[in-house]
Amino acid sequence: MEPIQIIKIGGHVLDDPQRLSVFLTHFAAVEGLKILVHGGGAVASQIGQRLGLEPHYVNGRRVTDAATLELVTMVYGGLLNKKLVAQLQHLGCNAVGLTGADGNLLHAVKRPVKGTDYGFVGDIRSEGVNASFLQSLFDQGLTPVLAPLTHDGAGSLLNTNADTIAQETAKALGRHRPVQLVYCFEKKGVLSDVQNEDSVIASITASDFESLKTSGVVSEGMIPKLQNAFEAIDGGVKKVGIGQAEELPQLLSGKAGTWIQ
Amino acid sequence: MEPIQIIKIGGHVLDDPQRLSVFLTHFAAVEGLKILVHGGGAVASQIGQRLGLEPHYVNGRRVTDAATLELVTMVYGGLLNKKLVAQLQHLGCNAVGLTGADGNLLHAVKRPVKGTDYGFVGDIRSEGVNASFLQSLFDQGLTPVLAPLTHDGAGSLLNTNADTIAQETAKALGRHRPVQLVYCFEKKGVLSDVQNEDSVIASITASDFESLKTSGVVSEGMIPKLQNAFEAIDGGVKKVGIGQAEELPQLLSGKAGTWIQ
Repeated sequence: MEPIQIIKIGGHVLDDPQRLSVFLTHFAAVEGLKILVHGGGAVASQIGQRLGLEPHYVNGRRVTDAATLELVTMVYGGLLNKKLVAQLQHLGCNAVGLTGADGNLLHAVKRPVKGTDYGFVGDIRSEGVNASFLQSLFDQGLTPVLAPLTHDGAGSLLNTNADTIAQETAKALGRHRPVQLVYCFEKKGVLSDVQNEDSVIASITASDFESLKTSGVVSEGMIPKLQNAFEAIDGGVKKVGIGQAEELPQLLSGKAGTWIQ
Repeated sequence: MEPIQIIKIGGHVLDDPQRLSVFLTHFAAVEGLKILVHGGGAVASQIGQRLGLEPHYVNGRRVTDAATLELVTMVYGGLLNKKLVAQLQHLGCNAVGLTGADGNLLHAVKRPVKGTDYGFVGDIRSEGVNASFLQSLFDQGLTPVLAPLTHDGAGSLLNTNADTIAQETAKALGRHRPVQLVYCFEKKGVLSDVQNEDSVIASITASDFESLKTSGVVSEGMIPKLQNAFEAIDGGVKKVGIGQAEELPQLLSGKAGTWIQ
């Protein structure tokens, strides 16, 4: 079966129209089957502030109460997702924007309360990804653009981490075909020196990751992303890349970014 | 080809969770191919107020400036559309929520400025409706749920009247198959006496419509809806019904509401 590229875009790039436009132009030009998964950016917090919503955090993680769920449904599922789709259409890419509720694409489980209640947060596994729906969209020449929202099948949307959606979708599709997963953000890759943008580590193995964690070289924020990457590889994904959104072509050709395989 | 029911939901029903739930249960149970088109409800104005947006009107019509376009993209394309989809999924209806940008479904033209600039408002004609995309969704057993947003193909979404979207979609599909268009709202149909909910006019012909307009029987707000209905009939739609959302089964069986054919 034809290979698939799953490209996740997040971080400050989503909040910067110029950088985003460069990325989307590159994304639209990627040949073959592809999926775009997007995160939330800072715009949800900004709109939340304007709406007078007070963010609540537990152990450093934002709690998704009912008002926050409405906010992210609006911003992720509406504003961001549809802006990306409209721009991709203009760039000649026949995009279709989806949340996990659409076509029962991403069926998740509301995170069980174990001491901490994170609210309307959905945990998704690759078994909850509707791979045959994605295949039917590919068959029609469409490019799915996924918002970081899943659903519980009982009428409620759920807030779900975009990196995790990208990973589980990659695993679900990776069972039957070669899948490459690429995380795009503002950095050029995993850096050995956070201060030096040119210190990109070109390749990381599982044992490298352990020593990088122990030595403290890998920054706090990068650990979950790398964890995700290795879980994807363990789950059957062929290669995982991490790099800068504006460098997508070089990243996809293996000439830039950090690669895990 | 198999007939299609295009059902438009709007008005206060969208703002009332209980009434909406009754309607959605009926909609999910409708057999055969169907499309749901939804309007905006009052929630966009409420959220706009909370965001501090001042609505601007020209000749009684709200102008869609850039901030309002973002608002309706969030509320129509995100909040409302995805809530409807998640609830329909729970009711066993494999819904997929779409704006006009998704899959290039509804290609519109930004309304030309002739004295009045309505802003980011899109005028759609049946030629701009991507009927083959809708057909491919039907082929997959999906039920499209359309938000009142179109796109211009040049990267911008546009605010478009939901009644018009329903009408033009009905005309586009009506070229090749029998299509029935149904407008659902809070009234039981077109009333001969606005004060009396039981004064539903069961059937209106084109000549009836002219005399109802002349005599002033048909209320101001109903005229564009009826105009839409007759344009749909002229464009090849088989029948157009107007009636109460909660009475959808009786409406579809012809036992309630007002019918135009």
